[in-house]
Amino acid sequence: MKATLFFTLQEVDGAAVQEHTAVVIDVLRASSTIVAALAAGAQAIYPVDSTEEAMKLVTSLGRADTMLAGERKGLKIEGFDLGNSPREFTPEAVGGKKIVMTTTNGTRALVAASGAERVLVASMLNLSAVARTIADAPRVAVICAGRDGRFAIEDALCAGMLLARLAGGAAALELEDTGRAALALAGAFGADAGFLSGTLAGRALAEIGLTEDIDWCARVDAHELVPELVDRVIRPMRDGQGQ
Amino acid sequence: MKATLFFTLQEVDGAAVQEHTAVVIDVLRASSTIVAALAAGAQAIYPVDSTEEAMKLVTSLGRADTMLAGERKGLKIEGFDLGNSPREFTPEAVGGKKIVMTTTNGTRALVAASGAERVLVASMLNLSAVARTIADAPRVAVICAGRDGRFAIEDALCAGMLLARLAGGAAALELEDTGRAALALAGAFGADAGFLSGTLAGRALAEIGLTEDIDWCARVDAHELVPELVDRVIRPMRDGQGQ
Repeated sequence: MKATLFFTLQEVDGAAVQEHTAVVIDVLRASSTIVAALAAGAQAIYPVDSTEEAMKLVTSLGRADTMLAGERKGLKIEGFDLGNSPREFTPEAVGGKKIVMTTTNGTRALVAASGAERVLVASMLNLSAVARTIADAPRVAVICAGRDGRFAIEDALCAGMLLARLAGGAAALELEDTGRAALALAGAFGADAGFLSGTLAGRALAEIGLTEDIDWCARVDAHELVPELVDRVIRPMRDGQGQ
Repeated sequence: MKATLFFTLQEVDGAAVQEHTAVVIDVLRASSTIVAALAAGAQAIYPVDSTEEAMKLVTSLGRADTMLAGERKGLKIEGFDLGNSPREFTPEAVGGKKIVMTTTNGTRALVAASGAERVLVASMLNLSAVARTIADAPRVAVICAGRDGRFAIEDALCAGMLLARLAGGAAALELEDTGRAALALAGAFGADAGFLSGTLAGRALAEIGLTEDIDWCARVDAHELVPELVDRVIRPMRDGQGQ
């Protein structure tokens, strides 16, 4: 397997992900929240770039069974039903619902990945399930959302932990600079809540009173679910190890 | 000391480096070549963004004692006197000369850094000298040139080795995500020619027959010289540990 890793979504161009299986990672918090929402029984998630697009889409999908979710600067967007805290996405809140979602980095990374042959969503919560799903893919592009165009260490660590799982597999793993660096991070750091709290994103969440989200997002392999983006809509993967 | 690290020059904005001591790193090869040129007795180096700018500047400086140096895709630019191989910058070739230089990543990183309070150039060749020079700076911005907008592991490793030297100093070292990741790389990898050969930049140099440049650039602390950019011109630093 040839694995290419992008530390920020800004580094991705469409040509770079064509004919690749793309894996999008935004540990704090969009990809964790997507796993939470689907695990709680949400029907589908529609990631969009902007608040305006979200408002338009929710109208065309029908307000009755569609919810608006998303954040700017970590906080729920005014007028939206939900923010970007995975703890809000309970079966009571989102079971059976469609969710239109826009976040600062994560949903934009999904849009950047959308030229790939296949687009999956990974977080600490479903690392091993994603690793099993892509084990036989010849070309993988791992896209870290990053933080406003800059490197986010928790996304790189999560990518490194994914690569470490793949490196243990049957297929030889071919890496470039970024992948080698991420593997080194997986060797140096653990994905516990203490580590995540010390990251820039973790500190920003603590500042707005969302420390509990960090604990939630640090639960490695808590879920078997693999979200897949098909035609701009994320649902649990149907075949293989998806729910 | 508060140290901010940028993995690519594209992540730098002018405001981010204001009131900082900036350290620019392009291990393969611009920052190594700048150290080589000044160590060989070049009078001054004028980094510019484009070939056109280089041609204009060499005319105004006077062709008699000014040389044109630079590369595109690793190779010497047509009509230029020198490429970007540090081995070309011998005392015979460049002693006493001014050098106008343009490279794909390194000289652009210098331009990106130019809003800083002070701009120094680091490579494996002069790591400890740079670390001693900035040991008492309150705010340091380390700018890796990267590779065409993407992460270059040899630059990040060099930055991590610089931070490791600073971490051993008297002042407490405050790091963010990128700095912590770079320190982990310095713990995981050594800066030998074998490692550099396996990087994307190293492989690209090998492909165009420039393997010997890699050995040259891997010589950690071979020089005491600290190049400093002042008013768009790089010269050996005058005070402190500069040559």
